[in-house]
Formats: sequence, structure tokens, C-alpha cells
Amino acid sequence: MIDKNFLLESDFAVDLYEKYAAQQPIIDYHNHLDTRMIAEDYQFNDISEVWLGGDHYKWRAMRANGVDERFVTGDADSYSKFEKWAATIQCSMRNPLYHWTHLELQRYFGISEVLNPDSAKKIYEQCNEALKQKDFSVRGLLGKMNVKVLCTTDDPTDDLRWHKAIAEDKSFDIKVYPSWRPDKVMAVDDGDNFRAYIKKLGDVAGVEIKNFADLLTALSRRQEHFATHGCHVADHGFWDFPDKEFTDSALETIFANVLKGGSVTADEAETFKSGMIFHLAKMNDKMGWAQQFHIGAIRNNNRRLFKQLGPDVGCDSMSDGKVAAGLSRILGKLDEEGCLTRTILYNLNPKDSEVLMSMAYNFNDGSVPGKMQYGAAWWFLDQLEGMRQQLEILSHGGLLSRFVGMLTDSRSFLSFPRHEYFRRILCNELGSDLKRGLMPKEEFDFIGKMVSDICYNNAKDYFRF
Amino acid sequence: MIDKNFLLESDFAVDLYEKYAAQQPIIDYHNHLDTRMIAEDYQFNDISEVWLGGDHYKWRAMRANGVDERFVTGDADSYSKFEKWAATIQCSMRNPLYHWTHLELQRYFGISEVLNPDSAKKIYEQCNEALKQKDFSVRGLLGKMNVKVLCTTDDPTDDLRWHKAIAEDKSFDIKVYPSWRPDKVMAVDDGDNFRAYIKKLGDVAGVEIKNFADLLTALSRRQEHFATHGCHVADHGFWDFPDKEFTDSALETIFANVLKGGSVTADEAETFKSGMIFHLAKMNDKMGWAQQFHIGAIRNNNRRLFKQLGPDVGCDSMSDGKVAAGLSRILGKLDEEGCLTRTILYNLNPKDSEVLMSMAYNFNDGSVPGKMQYGAAWWFLDQLEGMRQQLEILSHGGLLSRFVGMLTDSRSFLSFPRHEYFRRILCNELGSDLKRGLMPKEEFDFIGKMVSDICYNNAKDYFRF
Amino acid sequence: MIDKNFLLESDFAVDLYEKYAAQQPIIDYHNHLDTRMIAEDYQFNDISEVWLGGDHYKWRAMRANGVDERFVTGDADSYSKFEKWAATIQCSMRNPLYHWTHLELQRYFGISEVLNPDSAKKIYEQCNEALKQKDFSVRGLLGKMNVKVLCTTDDPTDDLRWHKAIAEDKSFDIKVYPSWRPDKVMAVDDGDNFRAYIKKLGDVAGVEIKNFADLLTALSRRQEHFATHGCHVADHGFWDFPDKEFTDSALETIFANVLKGGSVTADEAETFKSGMIFHLAKMNDKMGWAQQFHIGAIRNNNRRLFKQLGPDVGCDSMSDGKVAAGLSRILGKLDEEGCLTRTILYNLNPKDSEVLMSMAYNFNDGSVPGKMQYGAAWWFLDQLEGMRQQLEILSHGGLLSRFVGMLTDSRSFLSFPRHEYFRRILCNELGSDLKRGLMPKEEFDFIGKMVSDICYNNAKDYFRF
Repeated sequence: MIDKNFLLESDFAVDLYEKYAAQQPIIDYHNHLDTRMIAEDYQFNDISEVWLGGDHYKWRAMRANGVDERFVTGDADSYSKFEKWAATIQCSMRNPLYHWTHLELQRYFGISEVLNPDSAKKIYEQCNEALKQKDFSVRGLLGKMNVKVLCTTDDPTDDLRWHKAIAEDKSFDIKVYPSWRPDKVMAVDDGDNFRAYIKKLGDVAGVEIKNFADLLTALSRRQEHFATHGCHVADHGFWDFPDKEFTDSALETIFANVLKGGSVTADEAETFKSGMIFHLAKMNDKMGWAQQFHIGAIRNNNRRLFKQLGPDVGCDSMSDGKVAAGLSRILGKLDEEGCLTRTILYNLNPKDSEVLMSMAYNFNDGSVPGKMQYGAAWWFLDQLEGMRQQLEILSHGGLLSRFVGMLTDSRSFLSFPRHEYFRRILCNELGSDLKRGLMPKEEFDFIGKMVSDICYNNAKDYFRF
Repeated sequence: MIDKNFLLESDFAVDLYEKYAAQQPIIDYHNHLDTRMIAEDYQFNDISEVWLGGDHYKWRAMRANGVDERFVTGDADSYSKFEKWAATIQCSMRNPLYHWTHLELQRYFGISEVLNPDSAKKIYEQCNEALKQKDFSVRGLLGKMNVKVLCTTDDPTDDLRWHKAIAEDKSFDIKVYPSWRPDKVMAVDDGDNFRAYIKKLGDVAGVEIKNFADLLTALSRRQEHFATHGCHVADHGFWDFPDKEFTDSALETIFANVLKGGSVTADEAETFKSGMIFHLAKMNDKMGWAQQFHIGAIRNNNRRLFKQLGPDVGCDSMSDGKVAAGLSRILGKLDEEGCLTRTILYNLNPKDSEVLMSMAYNFNDGSVPGKMQYGAAWWFLDQLEGMRQQLEILSHGGLLSRFVGMLTDSRSFLSFPRHEYFRRILCNELGSDLKRGLMPKEEFDFIGKMVSDICYNNAKDYFRF
Repeated sequence: MIDKNFLLESDFAVDLYEKYAAQQPIIDYHNHLDTRMIAEDYQFNDISEVWLGGDHYKWRAMRANGVDERFVTGDADSYSKFEKWAATIQCSMRNPLYHWTHLELQRYFGISEVLNPDSAKKIYEQCNEALKQKDFSVRGLLGKMNVKVLCTTDDPTDDLRWHKAIAEDKSFDIKVYPSWRPDKVMAVDDGDNFRAYIKKLGDVAGVEIKNFADLLTALSRRQEHFATHGCHVADHGFWDFPDKEFTDSALETIFANVLKGGSVTADEAETFKSGMIFHLAKMNDKMGWAQQFHIGAIRNNNRRLFKQLGPDVGCDSMSDGKVAAGLSRILGKLDEEGCLTRTILYNLNPKDSEVLMSMAYNFNDGSVPGKMQYGAAWWFLDQLEGMRQQLEILSHGGLLSRFVGMLTDSRSFLSFPRHEYFRRILCNELGSDLKRGLMPKEEFDFIGKMVSDICYNNAKDYFRF
């Protein structure tokens, strides 16, 4: 299945991929990798641990395939779990997991056999054999993929000790930067959890947070800490995007009331979130960071599994609220006050794709090419057709040439072939256009440059690495 | 147009269709067939009666083509109506009606000529000639299509006498089961109609319904009645999906008030519907039935035609409200309480496709493969591109291999070639993926099994026929 | 790139285009052309003026490409602006601007060279040379494109003097009709602007507007004025589509209060808009005009640029509210009262495409073929894939054969090759279906007629030109 020309359906596509895409290094500007494992250069025990230890995509597929939770997140033995996975992956044909899995087998382990119940045992053993080798440690795996920069996702209260350790280790030359993800300061409707979080934030920042101004001070101090450890980019997650007018005094009142143990109405919570994201964005601009808005996930829908296993276990899905008016309000206000930094908008629900694309481009101001980005296909959209659609929508509504490209968004150290997957899709789309006469063949070199830019250069410039 | 390889655009597609799809029997697990006509083995008078007697799809197309209502649902003579239809179908090229019509002409009547004003007379006569034959009776028509199981759509107050008669007739071996569709007990905002319905329900159940508990008792008795007649599946229709917190005492209060002749606010109605669907779903689980949620139809938009002709006359369309939060609430609560049965989610508005797909899969629990299904393309989506998209969305978000497949949802005894239509599309998609190297050729046999499963075996297992 | 068979990917497509599409005249039934420039037969100074003088699509792309506002709408010299544009267009590959630009270069100026920084100077000079010629005046440009009818977009207060001048000029035989666009009478929440507008409307109509009835009288008089100058069609723009019950007395109360200087709540504004669009639609029916509803634009999102440059400068995007229930209410009421005229529904947000398609067809009444239209791809959807999708959605949900076809919606006198662009896409889609066996080859002539109808005849009949 995955041969040299996998996904490349024209000679133009092959040319673009080979000349302009394949050799580009990887900047993975958004992921959820465990920095401790990088710092300690963790060596996995076996392939079940790598693949099934924390990957909620795979858990979700296994449950759908009728696999008992014991073999998903439970205490079944390593090979039993793998066997269930091998049966599930065969039943997952056409799901992105199928291509991901086989790309990972081939690129890391040199295995081009199809994984299914028949081949399970053999592949299990081959992978485990390899994983014993030093060059299959966490750093070894990253090294195989020509990675230059990684941006992890971190809470403002994180001390970033592992980022520090990695930076200080001269034997390792991949840059591992934190990203600023202050979602918990938005969660004003989370009662005691919110109060506990504010307390913790104050403690690590050395600020007693008694009011909203203190909160901003504490955040600002933490931003300095993040900047010291190489942070270049912020990230903000939303269920629905908030859309309420706010004043600083309203924010102060709501915040003070909650600090005292009071509760908030739904309206107050939305007001607070509208104001909070405005202030957070303003602070991102002050730091010179780019910022990402991830919009539209409803998390932990399955309360039973949430209680049993916690968050991020494969029970999240798409929300379907309105996003346009709220974004217009916040981005418009930021632009008007001169404090709108480079911004990437991502949607989880495809109904929002064109809305975000068209909204982003209202706020380009000529200061930097591609300032406002319609972001890469995210999560459920991060698959063959989803990526193709993101490229189409971005192309038709904006400037594909200025796109900052793909990311893994992953918790897995084996997920980097997804960059290759994206690059092949990109080259195939452009190659198809060339073949169909939709782009001029005379511009082949420029189109090639566009490919290299999307794969590497644009992100490098955009995030100022 | 419709030759042997209709819609099959690769050798793989042809192979899959011929070896794994064509010979599969049909389980039509959701339709609106008239069981009396089956019980009495009705013989149609002419092709106008079959085609134009009750098909709101065709009526809608005719009105759009400028045909006066007299020739649509009015008193024009049979051939005049057919003539208008022949002119309309020519103007309907690219609409699913065009393929359906020509598939029906070919599969039932052996006519491969194109229907248009020139051929109208001849085809009219040929069809009418055939319809006089015994093997073109209702049972004859079903027999030609290799149908094994039919699930009709029935109100809880239905006595199911025709289902009984059919079951008792040993000369007829197609299983005809009722489906449980208690939508009218949701319609708490329908005033006197609602009260009259509750009265009728109580009467047929032998329960005097004085409160909400009585209502559940009456429904439960009717479920037993349905089970006795072979019911395997429930069905629930929604405009927008309700999303309110509810308590049993709130349901009791609202219901009691309405029974007394009171009216409900929009909020109360939504609260009642949220609670009612929860209880109905719980009862479905208790019965061991699968359940279907059909979400997003606004019915009877054309008030003039509704007054003139009643419901289901071609004046329904898509609603566009939010669905994610309400589904998360209800499915989450059912799962948490251990009473979520196998469930299929269908959407009418394509903006909800990915939302339902991703929501369903939050609640797979490993108890049975494909427990939570993203359902087949429904109504306006039941066409070439709509089916293709449903397959894509299901594939990329879940496990296509576990899909329970297609249904007719039809009132027409000539609609069964739509199963063939779906199967060709399915095989073409998979064939195309094989050809493009997106699935491994080594797995051809498994992919073939997947086709057979989707066409027949999955439904058989899922509904426990 | 743009050769004879541009976008025509099958022999059928080429045949359909050459025999049935290419020679059809153009009816551009919706645009924003400046009638004064037509009346005075304006001669442009240079290509920068034509292309960059007022085209917010291009401005938007330039800002996204990092071009300073001075070169976009500012005081930079003509060639500097063109140079920035040439660099931007190269970076806009896959955006519709790329095809539009090269079609315009080729069709008007005979230039088939690719525009990029290298060719900028030469092309700039070639275009400017041509623009000096008499046959490159505004009328000259229109004459090159075989245009028969233009419908501009006009406010009820417009005196239509330029329409009059054009009509009286016997040397010019393109019909230039006004369209009735009374959006400002909907804007009851616009305070002093609204009051000033009502005053102005009363003045030009010769009616002192003291109440809602007066408002309708004034509008009616202006409609007569528009009819005198050849108006055949009305147009109404909506952010979200209003959805409130209304009574005439409620409208009266709200209007009276606003006239006195009062403000309206959000609810009152929506009530007024619901009632106002009902009355406006009723008046359109009385005039025998067709009407267009353009739904879903949020305008002037960028407040900074709005203050600096005004409206229509490239800072508009898609809204994402609900549309189905409001449309069902208004169209249902109009139909019920027998005053629903021929109506075209356009959406900006693609999530509404199928909703509008399915809603429109609820209200066909057999009085005229294609009475209710799902309109052409609008604005952000007016591109290769957007047009293809509109054709698909219309085809699968309705009768493509009755479609009134494309429009430019443009402010630019060079935009008419977009009709060719649409026609090629249309022929390619139909040609592809023929090739794939989805339509019968025996019906080629009928399909050809369908092409001619969509390109020209349907619009001619529908608008009663």
C-alpha cells in the first residue's frame, strides 16, 4: 500500500514531493508530548506501551470494535492488548488510524507488512526487538524524523523544569519549547477547581491574587517565565466561542465574587470568558507571541469513563454553537486597539471551516504576510479528506502560499510521519491542479517554493524560531 | 445509462460488487410501507398509481417543474399525470429521482429505454401491462428483490393487525416487523391533539392515564404488544434535539398541567421532551431493542398545502438548530445509568453529519461491535453524493466495517433497487480506494467480507433478526 | 493555463460548451456597477485604476500578503500598486482571483502571459496601451462580452437619473435596469441613521412618513418610480434571517417609537425585521418582480478599516446563525396569503446551502417552472469548488434544468469573463456525468438545451426581460 508514490497521483505530485517536500525538516509547532520522557530519553518496554499506553484515538476505535475496556485501558497483558488492536486496525480501514499505523510501522520499524490478526504476533515481536535498541529511545525516534523544533502544550503553573533540562543538555539539538495554554483561567464556572487553580497560579507566580488586576499580574509573570524557556506561541481552547460585551469593572466584579466562593450565571461566565480571552490575547501580543484559537470541542461526554479514567480518553467530540459574532467582537477590538498578534484559528466542526477562514482574513493588516491564518485540519479533521478540504478552503478563501502548515497535536512519539502524510496530500493536490491546467506549468518552480514554504519556511518565519 | 457496471468505475469495484454485494438478501430495517397492502397482496391499477399515488418526492419535483396541482395530487386522469411526470423526470436529470426511476423501470419491468415525453406513452403501456400480472402484486414486487426482512414504522396505538395477518400467512416468507415510533407522546406542545392522543393510548393499553407514571405504564404495555409482533427496533424523530435538564417531578408537573388542559411554555416543552426521550430510550434498552434517532426535519412548511392535503406531501425540509449538547446530555445520562441500548443517529442537515458521527462514538462501550452507529444518508441526503459523503464521514471518523448499511425509508413498493444503488456506490468507493492504493490489495478478501457485512450481516446481527 | 479547453475535462464537456454555452449572450441580473460610468462611457486611466480602484477582493488578498495599506487603498503611485498586486497574485494561486485575473488579461487584452513580478512591467504597459483605445471604454468593455441585460443594485431613494440617461441613449443597446434594494428600511436598530434615511425616503417619495402605513406608501411610490425605469427584480440582504411573530400593530408601535427618537431592543428589532421583510416581499409580488434574499454576511468586521475607509473594503465575512425557521415562517405566510413571488435564496455560509435548497422547494406551487430558486454561488462561494458544490446541491435537491444561472455581483467592468468561467464549470460537470454514465447519452441534445437555458433562456423567462 505505502510505496514510494503513496498518495502521489500525478508526475507533478511526485516531482513536487521529491524536490521540495521530502527533505524539509519538521517544525512541530503544536503537540502534547511529555517533556520528561524527552529529558530522560525514555526507552519503551514494548510496542503496546508506545501505541496503546496513552492514545485515545486507538482506545476509541477499540471500544467501537466491541473490545472490552480491560484490553483498552485495563489490566490485560501487553500482547493481549496488541492482539485486540491488530483485529481493530483491520476493521479500521479508511480511518486515518489505518494509514498512520502502517506509516509508523514502515518509517520507524521498516515493516511494510499489513497489520492484521494473522501478522500480529510477528509484528509485535519485530517491533519489540527494535524498541530494545538505543536508537529507538524517545530521542532516537525523534532523531529519525528530522525534527528541528517541538512546541509542547503547557499550563501557566508548570515550572518547565524538563524544558530547562532539555535545553541545557548539549548532546541533544532538537529545540523543545513550551506553549502557553492558560485555559484554566477561563474556567470561571468551574467552582472550587477554579479557585484552587487561581491559588496555585498565585503561588507559583509569587502574587497573592485578590482581584482581576492581580490575576493579570500573575499571568504576566508566568509569561516571562515561559519566555525565558523559549515560548513562542500561545494556545487557547474553546467549547463555544464566547460573545458578550464586557467592561473591566464587570470582569472585576465577577472574578471577586467567584474568589469569595460565589457562583456565576451562564451569562456572567460568558462575559468573563469574553473579557479574559481579550486580555490574554493582548498579553500574547505584548510578548510578541503568535496565538492559536482551538474552537469547538465538547470534552468528556462519557461521564462514566470520565469518572473512571479522567479526561482525554476518547470521549470528546464536536460542539456546534455559533462562532462568527464572538470572533468578530474580540478580533475587531484587538485590531482596533492595535494589539492583535499573529493568530491561527482552528475549528473542530467542519461547519465552521469557511466561517473561520473568512473571519481570519478580515484582520490582515499588511504588517506581515499571512498574519491571520486559517489553521491546519484539527483532530477529527486530521485525516485524508479533512486535510484536503482544509487546503481547498484555505486556497479558495485566502492565500495557500502563506500557510504555516501541519502539526501533529499528538501525545505519541511515533506520530511524526503524519507530517509526511500531510506533505504527500499537499503535493498531490497541487500536482493535480497542475495536471488539470488549473495552475500554469510555467510557475512550477514557484509552486515548488510554495511547497517548501508550507512544509517549513513559513512556520519558521511566522513563529520567529 | 444503467448497464452492468453502472456506478462501478474500477475493476476492483466490479469485483467487489459481483462477488460480495449483488447476491446479498435485503434487510430493509426502516421504511413506511403499508402493511395492509402486503397482507392483502394488493394489485396496482397502473403505473401512475404506484409511482404518483403517494410519493411526495415526485410531487415536489412536479410542482418545481411548473406542473399544476391537478396533475400532482389532484383529479387529473392517470395518463395525464404520467405525461406530466415523464416531462418532469427529464427535467430532473442529476436528481436521485432520475436514477431511481430508471432503475425501477429496468429492475421491475425490464425497460431500459429512457423515460421522457417521447417514450412516455409506450412505457406507460408496457408498465401497465406488466402490473396486470400476478407476479407484479405487492408481494410479487417484494419477491423480485430478494427481501428477507422489512421493518415498518408504527404508532404505539396501532393494533398491528396487518403485521399479525402477514405473520400468520404461511405462504409468505418475508418477515414484516413493526417498529416502535412513539413521536406523538413527545408532542406535549400540541394541545388538544396531544390530549386526544394520550386518551387513545390509554384506551388501547387499558390504562387510565392520569399522570406521568401511568403514561410510562401504558407505553410499556404497548411495547409488550409490539414485541409480541416481532418489533426489534424503535425510532424517534426530532425537529431540533431537546437540551434541558429535567427531573421526574418536573415531567410530572408539566404533564399533569397539560392533561388538565393547560398549555406549556417553549421551555417546559423542551424540558418535557428531554425527559421523555430519556425515558423512551430507557424503555427501549429494557426491551433489548435497537433505537434510531432521526434528527432535523421541519415538516409541513407549506401551510396552504398542509391544510389542503395533510402531512407528507413534499413540503418538508431541514432544520438547523444545535444538536451536540442535547445529545451529549441524553446519551451521557443513559450510558451512566447503564441503560443505553444500541443506537443509530441520523441527520437531515449535512452540517450535523460530523457532529453526530463524533458524538455517537463517545458512547461505544465494547459490549458489542458498532454499538453506536452514524446512520445511513437520510431523505435529502439519500442520493449519490449524500451516500458517498456518509460513507466518507463514517470511514474517517469511525469504523465503516461495522456499518449496518442502507434502508429505503420509503412508502413505495418499487423502491427496493435503492439497496442496489447504495451497494454500487459502496463498492465503487472501496474499489476506488483499492485502485488508488489507499487500502492494501492483500486485504481484498477482508474488504469483500466488509461489503457483505455492510449489505447484510451487520444489520442481521445488530437488530438481532 | 487558459487554453481552448480550460476546465473542460471530457469530450462531452467540450461539445456542450462549444455548441450550447459559448455563444449565449449574458444576462447579468445582479451586480453593483456604477451606472454613471456607463452613462458617461468612462475611459479608465490605467489598469491599476480598473483593477485596484475599487475591488475589495484584491485589497483583502494584498493585506494578507503583507502589503502595506499605502499600496492597497492609499496614495502610492499607480505602478507601485500594480507591482504589489503582481506579487500578490502569484501568491494567490488556487484563489479565484488567480483565474479571474488571467481570464481578464486574455479575454479583454489578449494577454496570455502569466502575471507575476517578472512580467508585471510589460503587462502593465500593454494593458495601459489598450485602455487608451476607444473600444476599451466602459461601454466598449461591456460590448466585447455580448452582454444583453444588466441589473444594478439601487437604493429606493436613488433618482435613477443615470439609468434614465442610458435608456434614452439610442446609440447603446445594452439594457441597464435598476434593482430594488431597500435594506436600509430594515435597519430599525440603526438609530439616527435610520431616522435620517426615513426622512430622505419620505422626501424623495413626496410623503411625510409619520407612521408605518406612510412608510409603505412611500416605498410603494418609489417602486412605481423603479418600475418606470425598468426594474424587474428586488434584492434583500440579511445578516441572520429574522424569526419573530409580528402583528401590524406591533410594527406600528416599534416604528412610531423609533421615529420619535426611541431605541429598540434586540427582540423588537427582530420583530420589525420579520414584519418588514414580509411587507416588502408582498410589495414585490404586487409589482410582479422576482425577489432575491442574500443571507448571511457580517459586514465591516474590521472597525479600524471601517472608520478609515468605510464599507465594502474587504473586511466582510460569513455569519452563522439559524435560517430555517425564519424562512419557513415568512415564505409560509406569503404563500398562504397568495403573495409569494418568484424567489431566489442565496447563502454566504456553506452550512446553509442544503437548508436553503430544501426550504425553497417547499414553496413551488406549479405556477411557473423553477419558481423557487436555490441561487448561484455567492461571494466567498463564487469560486471553482463553490460553484461546483452549488450545482451539485441544486441538482441533488431540485431541478438543475430550471436554474437561472450565474451573475457577477461585481463592481468591476472587467468581471464578465466570470460568466464564461461558470459556463465552463457547468459544462464540465455535465460532461463528466455523461462520461461516467450518470446521464444517458441519448439525452445529449436535451442536456445541451439545459445548458443554453441555464446560461441564458431561464433568466430571460424568469425575470421577464
